[in-house]
Amino acid sequence: MLEWLRTYRKDYLAGDVGAGVVVAMMMIPQGMAYALVAGLPPVTGLYASIVPPLLYALLGTSSTQSVGPMAIVSLMTASALAPLAAPGSSLYATLAGQLAILAGVVLLACGLLRVGFLANFFSRPVMNGFTLGSSLTIALGQVDTLLGAAPPRWHAPSAALGLGAVAFLLLARRWLAPLLRRAGAPPAAADVGARLAPMLLVLASVALVALLRLDARGVHVIGAVPAGLPQLHLAQSGQHWLPLLKPALLIGFVSFLVAMSGAQALALKRAEKLHTDRELAALGAANVGSALSGGFPVTGSLSRSAVNFAAGANTQLAGVVTALLLAGALVLPTGWLALLPLPVLSATIIVAVLGMLEWHTLRTSWAYDRADALALLATAGGVLVLGVEGGVVLGLALSLGAMIWRESRPHMALLGRIPGTEHFRNVERHAVETDPRVLLLRVDAALFFGNVEAVNARIEDLLAAHPAARHLVLVLSAVNTIDTSALFGLLDLHQTLGQRGVQLHLAEVKGPVMDRLRASSLVEKLHGHIFLSTANAWDALTRTTHDCKQNPDVAG
Amino acid sequence: MLEWLRTYRKDYLAGDVGAGVVVAMMMIPQGMAYALVAGLPPVTGLYASIVPPLLYALLGTSSTQSVGPMAIVSLMTASALAPLAAPGSSLYATLAGQLAILAGVVLLACGLLRVGFLANFFSRPVMNGFTLGSSLTIALGQVDTLLGAAPPRWHAPSAALGLGAVAFLLLARRWLAPLLRRAGAPPAAADVGARLAPMLLVLASVALVALLRLDARGVHVIGAVPAGLPQLHLAQSGQHWLPLLKPALLIGFVSFLVAMSGAQALALKRAEKLHTDRELAALGAANVGSALSGGFPVTGSLSRSAVNFAAGANTQLAGVVTALLLAGALVLPTGWLALLPLPVLSATIIVAVLGMLEWHTLRTSWAYDRADALALLATAGGVLVLGVEGGVVLGLALSLGAMIWRESRPHMALLGRIPGTEHFRNVERHAVETDPRVLLLRVDAALFFGNVEAVNARIEDLLAAHPAARHLVLVLSAVNTIDTSALFGLLDLHQTLGQRGVQLHLAEVKGPVMDRLRASSLVEKLHGHIFLSTANAWDALTRTTHDCKQNPDVAG
Repeated sequence: MLEWLRTYRKDYLAGDVGAGVVVAMMMIPQGMAYALVAGLPPVTGLYASIVPPLLYALLGTSSTQSVGPMAIVSLMTASALAPLAAPGSSLYATLAGQLAILAGVVLLACGLLRVGFLANFFSRPVMNGFTLGSSLTIALGQVDTLLGAAPPRWHAPSAALGLGAVAFLLLARRWLAPLLRRAGAPPAAADVGARLAPMLLVLASVALVALLRLDARGVHVIGAVPAGLPQLHLAQSGQHWLPLLKPALLIGFVSFLVAMSGAQALALKRAEKLHTDRELAALGAANVGSALSGGFPVTGSLSRSAVNFAAGANTQLAGVVTALLLAGALVLPTGWLALLPLPVLSATIIVAVLGMLEWHTLRTSWAYDRADALALLATAGGVLVLGVEGGVVLGLALSLGAMIWRESRPHMALLGRIPGTEHFRNVERHAVETDPRVLLLRVDAALFFGNVEAVNARIEDLLAAHPAARHLVLVLSAVNTIDTSALFGLLDLHQTLGQRGVQLHLAEVKGPVMDRLRASSLVEKLHGHIFLSTANAWDALTRTTHDCKQNPDVAG
Repeated sequence: MLEWLRTYRKDYLAGDVGAGVVVAMMMIPQGMAYALVAGLPPVTGLYASIVPPLLYALLGTSSTQSVGPMAIVSLMTASALAPLAAPGSSLYATLAGQLAILAGVVLLACGLLRVGFLANFFSRPVMNGFTLGSSLTIALGQVDTLLGAAPPRWHAPSAALGLGAVAFLLLARRWLAPLLRRAGAPPAAADVGARLAPMLLVLASVALVALLRLDARGVHVIGAVPAGLPQLHLAQSGQHWLPLLKPALLIGFVSFLVAMSGAQALALKRAEKLHTDRELAALGAANVGSALSGGFPVTGSLSRSAVNFAAGANTQLAGVVTALLLAGALVLPTGWLALLPLPVLSATIIVAVLGMLEWHTLRTSWAYDRADALALLATAGGVLVLGVEGGVVLGLALSLGAMIWRESRPHMALLGRIPGTEHFRNVERHAVETDPRVLLLRVDAALFFGNVEAVNARIEDLLAAHPAARHLVLVLSAVNTIDTSALFGLLDLHQTLGQRGVQLHLAEVKGPVMDRLRASSLVEKLHGHIFLSTANAWDALTRTTHDCKQNPDVAG
């Protein structure tokens, strides 16, 4: 805890303060915007940006993680609360806090139980599909606010402001950094400076609304923002804990995935080591803290963390600086913020989430493994059609389904001897010697419940095709583990082969696999032998037979 | 379809007819008992034993599978219908049919989509835990009927009849076969004869009730059984299709698991080959047929199929004989059946499901892999506490969780050269040469989304412990597949190692893995080399360095 503080060096200070200021400038528009996505008053997004980063600084292990509101988690919050309360109602805000408490407790419990490995259930293409679907869902959800009315209608001043803001942000993303660089700024500073465009836009749009009295012309603005720090309290609605539990589990799961994938990418660049279980605890505490200070579910945001990293953050002091600046903004007069036009806030949301899209993962998967690419697209489609919770569940099912499918069809090869050598290779690829009485089968996969049937089916086919076979040698050189189901599969196989007059042998069993097998009854029951090498098996089993012949199919 | 009929031989006939008769004698008490478990009138259990085996005989691929009511599926039926209708009501019976239709459609769809591999999602210990929990749930559910009242109270005549029946059945199971054998019956015939004890008990108990007028003394009897064949029809309740869909998915899944695991065990003994997708279609058709003829969800029953096998069934003609005998029983006067006492039926249920218990799987798992044994116990507990649907979901989660957990911690070894050879072994187990500039890491598992993090973390540790390292060689001799997530992991690793001045190399890449990698950008981007063997990598990378030394830790 606070290891960064004990080892703090003076020369870290400039980088940390600078990065803290930059991230605070990003956090103000983002926090308000993501509160809007969650269906909450914009000021709650500022509340959720103060206590969570402080708690993360106390407990977390990443030097650059920026914890606070995040688009996808806000979307999940909105979809969890929609069936239970009306957005804008005080019950809705109460339930948002309750949801953050529960998500926090889930994360803390996972940290204590050390089950961080559960995050490994999501494959990367499926995670990408989930992000893709969520981004599009969020962007689509902002179109009405952007245009000031539901399409095909629009409210001209709102639409002008919203679309103008989108254009400004896209142009800024594309051209602001090069412009700053040409103006003499160092490249890193130019990149970071370009991330301040949303804050600039907020200030400019407030001025514009004030000058042109756009609010009187029907442009929606966020309205009075209560000044002062959030009160520490926990409003709660007793009968809603249970219905919030399932969404809280999903939000906890996704929060952790999102935070870890971002933090890990940055940690690798600096050879930092993250502690999974402490990260879980830190995110859990951040969520509980958010709930107690009037906020909603939060997590680490890759976009802010990356800016924090690029702006030179050395330690979590940067996060503390950000939190203090946000608190300062709330203590100062907030009256001017009332005129911030909602279409502009929608524009920042749309540009931010579309910036999360990347097509590289889809392109690479498509070329490398079509099944993974289809899982990506199905998950994205699932989020769009079934909603974000359905998308998570579908994504989980597809991740695991694709893996079981791949592993349930392992590569297997019938082996023969390359004449004059001790090498044994696939009879379909090489001109090899075989013996009709001795079948050598190599299985190229860990044996587990998912492929027991496939191995048995292949052996049935082999025995049907080789009625003279009296010995079956399983060559286990590529078998790294054998789980309990596969052990039972081997015991069954051993018994039925015995009834049919075929001896079962094993060869090239790896050390750790052999250690386990010794704890089972297979080793003592086995009527065949366990050979150190395939060559030993071949020599011992073909010695009694004299009808060795070249494999006729490939010998030519 | 009907392949067995086209190739039928006269000498099959005696075995088929004999087995068909024996199974029919088992089916009559079992069918009525499992209808009771499902919360339905006993006669529906007889209906569910006629059309399903006929359709299975038409479409199925197992010669000995006996399709009809089955304990666990009946329990799942009861738990699916309980929230929707009162047991005994006509809506309840209608919904039981609807559930069978949906389960049948699910199975047919799975057969058409060829997704039989999905059955591989359940590991064997988890399946055993599921059976264990379901059996105990069923047995506990029968205690009230067995005693004629809820414990601690009991109804003396009912309890005497029920407990007497349990004692008779247990004694018959233990002693009847040896007795028959001693009386001169051949062993196989004696074993089969002993399975007729429940039918004998039914007849004796009806006589007893009639003689002693036990029904007038408060012993519940099944009451009038409508004579005649079931009418082909489909009663339906439009608004209940949707709530039945999820239980139908689970029932379809479990039906298939139960039927396949039983049929496969028997098929192996006769070197028969089952066709997964045709089995799915046959079970689907059997369920739809059951629904249309007044029945409820059915599946293959291992206990009946094993008796069918032992009694000498050669083809599905045995199933046809069973179905015709059941139909015959319904055409004959059924008035006498009205006096069948419910406590006796409960006794047959309790003894049948307790007979499904086996502790061998638990014992073997406990010795072989504690995690699998705990998954077994957790699944059994889950069924008892959460109910059978919760148990299926928990079992799925545990099967997959245990696998991901196992695979997310793969065995990895840092390698060194055994001096004077081309062999490279684990530095922790062997006295080997190492080079501080060259790290050779062998990963003993397929690389996939579940272990990307573990591999990265190990590499981080290695680089921290060997600051002089300039080359990292991943030895992929045990890597059978690399999925898309792992490919991205390698690309990320490659980039971050490059930034830190460490070259990434690969060695001993398997053919199929290399084929896939060529479709990715890794091969062209790689700043290191792809070496055919670890020895090649060692020679090439250590040539430029002169500080080879013995590994000091183990060299002694």
